[in-house]
Amino acid sequence: MEDRWQECMDFAVSIARKAGSVVCAALKEDVSIMVKSSPADLVTATDQKVEEMIISSIKEKYPSHSFIGEESVAAGAGSTLTDNATWIIDPIDGTTNFVHRFPFVAVSIGFAVNKQVEFGVVYSCVEDKMYTGRKGKGSFCNGQKLQVSGQKDITKSMIITELGSNRNPEVIKTVLSNMERLLCIPIHGIRAVGTAAVNMCLVATGGADAYYEMGLHCWDMAAASVIVTEAGGTILDATGGLFDLMSCRIISASSREIAERIAKELQIIPLERDDGISTN
Amino acid sequence: MEDRWQECMDFAVSIARKAGSVVCAALKEDVSIMVKSSPADLVTATDQKVEEMIISSIKEKYPSHSFIGEESVAAGAGSTLTDNATWIIDPIDGTTNFVHRFPFVAVSIGFAVNKQVEFGVVYSCVEDKMYTGRKGKGSFCNGQKLQVSGQKDITKSMIITELGSNRNPEVIKTVLSNMERLLCIPIHGIRAVGTAAVNMCLVATGGADAYYEMGLHCWDMAAASVIVTEAGGTILDATGGLFDLMSCRIISASSREIAERIAKELQIIPLERDDGISTN
Repeated sequence: MEDRWQECMDFAVSIARKAGSVVCAALKEDVSIMVKSSPADLVTATDQKVEEMIISSIKEKYPSHSFIGEESVAAGAGSTLTDNATWIIDPIDGTTNFVHRFPFVAVSIGFAVNKQVEFGVVYSCVEDKMYTGRKGKGSFCNGQKLQVSGQKDITKSMIITELGSNRNPEVIKTVLSNMERLLCIPIHGIRAVGTAAVNMCLVATGGADAYYEMGLHCWDMAAASVIVTEAGGTILDATGGLFDLMSCRIISASSREIAERIAKELQIIPLERDDGISTN
Repeated sequence: MEDRWQECMDFAVSIARKAGSVVCAALKEDVSIMVKSSPADLVTATDQKVEEMIISSIKEKYPSHSFIGEESVAAGAGSTLTDNATWIIDPIDGTTNFVHRFPFVAVSIGFAVNKQVEFGVVYSCVEDKMYTGRKGKGSFCNGQKLQVSGQKDITKSMIITELGSNRNPEVIKTVLSNMERLLCIPIHGIRAVGTAAVNMCLVATGGADAYYEMGLHCWDMAAASVIVTEAGGTILDATGGLFDLMSCRIISASSREIAERIAKELQIIPLERDDGISTN
C-alpha cells in the first residue's frame, strides 16, 4: 500500500532542516529575550520568526491542514486537536538553551491524523542530528535505525527529566521529591539536557532508559513520541495510564516495566490541559 | 620565555585523543559493569585499561613525574598532591554515561607543578571536542578560543550540577534542597550532562553560567579547572572560599558574582578529602 503521508514527511524533513539552519545562524547573533508564564519561561523573536516560516511554508503546500504551534498558541490561536491532518510545531524546543547557547536546541514537527501521530521529525540543529519516526516504519537518526535500550530493571536505569520552567515553590517541591524517590530506588542517575524532544530522542537511541516530565506541551512531545515508540519504546501518561498528547505530561521509556515503575513513584502535578478540556 | 611545559601539554593532547578513540571504540561493544562505592558508582574494564594505557605512556616519557589516576587510587595508590610534576587523570569522566552510551564521556588529563594546575586537556570523544587550557595562555576547543558568558546576574543564569552517585538519603536530600534554593531565586534553569569535566568546559564556552558539585574528585576537576579560569571564569570552593583541588567540591562560574551567590545558597555536604588530610 502506498504511504499516504510520506510526501508530507519528506516535506517536514526539508523544512525542519531549513528552520534549523535559521536557528543555528541566530545562535551567532545577539538574542533578545521576552518572558512568558514565569521568569524562567522564555521566548525570543527567533522562535516566532521560525514558527511563522514553518507554518507559512506548509500552509502554501497543504492549505486544508490544521496547525498547532507553540508561538501561535501563545499569541492566542487555539490548540484543540481535531481529526483533521494537523501539524504540531515547536520552532525551538529548548528556548532557554537557545538563549544561553547551551548546545541542544531542536526544531520539532509532528503530524497527526485522526488524533494519532503519523510521523515526527526532530532536528537537533547544533548537533546536526535529524531524527525521524514514521508510524509502522521505524525511527532513524541521520539515516541510522534507532532502537531503545530494552532495559527493564529500574535499578540499572538512567533517567532523563527536567526541572522545568515553573517557579511555583510547591511545584518545585514536587518535581524534586519525584526525583528523590527515583534516586532512592536506587537508579544509576538522572540527566537533564533542557529539551523534551532531544531527551525523548536520546531514549529512542538507547542512550537513556526513560524520560518523564509534567508541565510540557503537545508541541514538545508530538514528534518525538512516535520516534520513541517506533524505536521499540513505550509511552505512558505520568499516571501510568494511556498517553494523552494534550495532557501536558509523559513517561517515555525503553520498556513498559520501567515506564510503569516510574509512574508508581510520581506524585502528579496538577496541570491545565493543552486543549483546555476539563477532566474533573 | 620558553614554555617549560608545552611539550608535556602537546603530549597530553595526543594521548587524550588516542585514549578517546579507545573509549569510543569500546562504546560499540558490550560493557561489563562493576560497582564501587554505591550502586550508582560504576566502573568498567575500559576505565582501567585506558588509565593504564595513559599512565604507562606518560611514565615512559617522563619517568620522574608523579601520577594521581582515578582507577589507580581505587586500586590502592595514594592521592597526595606533592610539589612534583603530577599528572591527574580520569580515563573516562562520565562512566555512568559510558555504560549507558549517553553521548558525553571525556578523557581528562590535568598537570600540576607545585600544586598549581599548569594545563588541562579534556577530550569529549563522542562529540570529538578537544578542550585545552594552559595557564596564562587561554583555553580552546578544537582550536577556537573560549570565553565564559560573563553573566553576573544570577536571575538570568543557567547552572549545571549533578545529582551524583551517592545514594545516602541524607546526601540526596541536601543535593536536592540546594537545587531548590537556587531554582527559587529564581534562575533560568538547571542542566545535568553527567560529566564534571564536560560540564565545566560548557561553562568555559559560555553555554552555561556556572557549574557546582560536591562529592567529585581531583581527577574530575583538575584539567577543566584551568580551562574555565583561562576562559575568564572563576573557580571557588563550594563554601565560597579559595578553590582547593583536593576538597572534592567546586563552584566554577562565568563571574565571581555568580560563584559567590551560589556559595551563599549551598548547604555543604560533609566529605572526605581526596588527600585524606583532616581539616577539623
